[in-house]
Amino acid sequence: MSDIVPHMLIRSAEQRPNKTAIVFQSREITFAELRKYAEKTAQKLAAAGAGQNIHVAVLAQNSASYAIITHALSLLRSVLTPLNTRLSREECLWQLRDCEATILICDEIFAETGKFLAEQLPDVRILYMSGAQAEADLFAELPEAAVELFTEYDSEAIQAIMYTSGSSGKPKGALITYGMHWWNAAASALNIGVYPDDAWLANLPFFHIGGLSILMRSVIYGMRVIIHEKFDPDAANNAVAEDRATIISVVAITLRKMLNALPENSNFPPWLRVVLVGGGPVPETLLQECLRRGAPVCQTYGLTESCSQAVTLAPQDALRKIGSAGRPLPAVQLKILQNGKETAPGKAGEIFLKGPTITKGYYHLEDLNASVFQNGWFGTGDIGSRDDEGYIYIHDRRADLIISGGENIYPAEIEAALLSHPDVADAGVCGIDDEEWGKVPAAFIKLREGAILTATELQDYAAQRLAKFKCPRKIIFTDEVPRNAAGKLLRRRLTELLPP
Amino acid sequence: MSDIVPHMLIRSAEQRPNKTAIVFQSREITFAELRKYAEKTAQKLAAAGAGQNIHVAVLAQNSASYAIITHALSLLRSVLTPLNTRLSREECLWQLRDCEATILICDEIFAETGKFLAEQLPDVRILYMSGAQAEADLFAELPEAAVELFTEYDSEAIQAIMYTSGSSGKPKGALITYGMHWWNAAASALNIGVYPDDAWLANLPFFHIGGLSILMRSVIYGMRVIIHEKFDPDAANNAVAEDRATIISVVAITLRKMLNALPENSNFPPWLRVVLVGGGPVPETLLQECLRRGAPVCQTYGLTESCSQAVTLAPQDALRKIGSAGRPLPAVQLKILQNGKETAPGKAGEIFLKGPTITKGYYHLEDLNASVFQNGWFGTGDIGSRDDEGYIYIHDRRADLIISGGENIYPAEIEAALLSHPDVADAGVCGIDDEEWGKVPAAFIKLREGAILTATELQDYAAQRLAKFKCPRKIIFTDEVPRNAAGKLLRRRLTELLPP
Repeated sequence: MSDIVPHMLIRSAEQRPNKTAIVFQSREITFAELRKYAEKTAQKLAAAGAGQNIHVAVLAQNSASYAIITHALSLLRSVLTPLNTRLSREECLWQLRDCEATILICDEIFAETGKFLAEQLPDVRILYMSGAQAEADLFAELPEAAVELFTEYDSEAIQAIMYTSGSSGKPKGALITYGMHWWNAAASALNIGVYPDDAWLANLPFFHIGGLSILMRSVIYGMRVIIHEKFDPDAANNAVAEDRATIISVVAITLRKMLNALPENSNFPPWLRVVLVGGGPVPETLLQECLRRGAPVCQTYGLTESCSQAVTLAPQDALRKIGSAGRPLPAVQLKILQNGKETAPGKAGEIFLKGPTITKGYYHLEDLNASVFQNGWFGTGDIGSRDDEGYIYIHDRRADLIISGGENIYPAEIEAALLSHPDVADAGVCGIDDEEWGKVPAAFIKLREGAILTATELQDYAAQRLAKFKCPRKIIFTDEVPRNAAGKLLRRRLTELLPP
Repeated sequence: MSDIVPHMLIRSAEQRPNKTAIVFQSREITFAELRKYAEKTAQKLAAAGAGQNIHVAVLAQNSASYAIITHALSLLRSVLTPLNTRLSREECLWQLRDCEATILICDEIFAETGKFLAEQLPDVRILYMSGAQAEADLFAELPEAAVELFTEYDSEAIQAIMYTSGSSGKPKGALITYGMHWWNAAASALNIGVYPDDAWLANLPFFHIGGLSILMRSVIYGMRVIIHEKFDPDAANNAVAEDRATIISVVAITLRKMLNALPENSNFPPWLRVVLVGGGPVPETLLQECLRRGAPVCQTYGLTESCSQAVTLAPQDALRKIGSAGRPLPAVQLKILQNGKETAPGKAGEIFLKGPTITKGYYHLEDLNASVFQNGWFGTGDIGSRDDEGYIYIHDRRADLIISGGENIYPAEIEAALLSHPDVADAGVCGIDDEEWGKVPAAFIKLREGAILTATELQDYAAQRLAKFKCPRKIIFTDEVPRNAAGKLLRRRLTELLPP
């Protein structure tokens, strides 16, 4: 039986009408205004065809408008599909088709891409936001319908379809419900607390769960969020110092940049009470510097499929448990299996998760859903272990995953693009270390006999098909891509073959 | 679909093994010990026949052992039925039969009552706790079974059947699920916060939801609770001052007594951060004194059926909204209906509640369940209104309800007992003001022609059938009990007929 709770934007607007909900570009929007704008936007989107279970894609930078649209869609119980703004046009097209969106909303920056997509998808209605500072009337050209809006969240209803890289080479749309958001917000509150003066900096993109979940927590807690278009170290430091952000979500690389941008001999202010660091372990030197300079680091391990945080390390354990992602959140169960059996402490295995914050599956991928769940436990594909005290260590993200500046990249997707070139006989992709991004993709290429193709030519070819961050930084021509007898790519061998 | 979360005692024991879970009679029990004791107790109860969906009644004063049994039953997924220790033997008998308990657990104090009940109910197995300070082995005479214990809470599973007074004259067993506890704990956390140093004083009886819910919050939050056998003003003040309780749950009368017991010119310490006051409005003079003496009062309105708090007033609103019970908790929806329509601000009507903290119904009272819910909304029978800002004012508990020192009394139950006397022709009961208890019951009695019966004789007769707090304090003999043409008792008329 699904749980029905109040629509939390309406609730927050009723109980904290004059409290600031959103800070964006030095402007403030109260919860009462946010509700008013979201309701108006909902009526306009309804006039454009949005409604219950209608899939609406959004291709836009972070903005207050993006937040308003997110809540407007929840008032209609339409399903939000946020598109990664770094995708190539071809990738956008593929996702729009895959999620069966009938409406696409673009901001000004992506107007050109919108036009291209509109031509390709004549059945998809494309809407353009009315530009900056137009929150009060986001779609000036649209009439308002007079539909009845939903005043409740249904825990089982789908709030969003969030695409994540797929090991098959195609992204998968993880189903995110209102219940997942609620439970995650509650579990996070029990874990790191909620204080009346809390403000969460949202500079992670809303097309990632780490960003989107902040918007939902904002209305569930009645909490201020500071929205940035994108990560910028000076702006982020300023959000803490001037806008008094108390919680920030970062990855190691962005945290490093924030520290570097901080004036020497200057520390983070005392109200910064939680620095949630996702996307892999924090190097010890960085951790030490954080603690010295007033950044209370909470390492965390989460997935799109777990609606952000699933495991979090408390700041007081940061030094005692270096390298650990912490312990499962209150509502989350975690087990580590090898050959179907739970591993002993210290022994690695695949991490399985269970709980109301975990996705029920991927959009229309029933075969995959059947294989990824075992008795209600979700197999993450990530490798980890736990110590005697139950602290979790992540050894390796899904074997073949490349994490580049917080973005997940599946080599299979890049290989598929490279293999589509007529001169490429075989291709294998792996991650190589990069000082700035952590990892970047590199490709081993076997050319067809007699073919002449330069690395630059192949990179240009890839750039037309793939998001920039997925394009191989390095091309290594080889006589043979290592495969086993069955023809399966030996991806780990590639790493060994890398030139020093 | 039900939500599955970890068994929260196990989780707290894993994550905070050495933290104090329970303080009782100057002894401390850690979460690891609480888990160990609860597991051992579960195995012993299993040996005595407890198991999934087995109904186990408990007749005992508050104690650490009571908490252990509560968690032991949750490990077996047995259903706890806490009996009100103030009930008469006949009332206990009735409830045991009604809830179909097959096991009854008594503490030493209620051993005599246990013996009586055992004779009456040969099919019910009676177990006696091993006495004070025996937490490590509560049932010394029982063997341990080796059954598999539940390691999860299922949100839809019944944790307890809690009896509440029924307007029909018979108590009703409200079904309390794990989900109700979880959502209530989460909503309360979002509302009044959870801090690492929190400790909740549990001196409300565990047979009331206000007491029981503290035990569940303790393991959901990983929070220390200080258990008192019963309310005592000096002990309560001491729990705050010495044991550093940060949250206490009181009713106006117990709060008054705590203030009176506090040395003059002395205030509550600053760590007392929430004083939750239920059971009706707090008089303004009391409120003023509380604020002056450092008791941050949060008035609240709750029911057994809402798993304690449903509406709570924040301390900062206490003076601005005198007399209000506050606003609905995050997960709770509230509406006020008169003749099926929502009332305007300031206009009174019946209070309806909806949300995952609200009961699904009463044990085996399907007809009542069908009538008490309207489209998923639970009709409380209580009368209230809301102001322009959405603050709720409770005008009157269920028209015929007498609240005496925090206990709910239904006149119909007393009338039924009085009418069973052969000399009584008619009876009508209402509440009269009482300085100590708020209200106490008074009875209008019409004797049969020629009968001679004194007030004391009738009170003695009632005392054999009813809990002491339900016995009429005052008997008023009258020629006629006011009834309408259809014979319906005009209960409000009784109040007017009271001698000044």
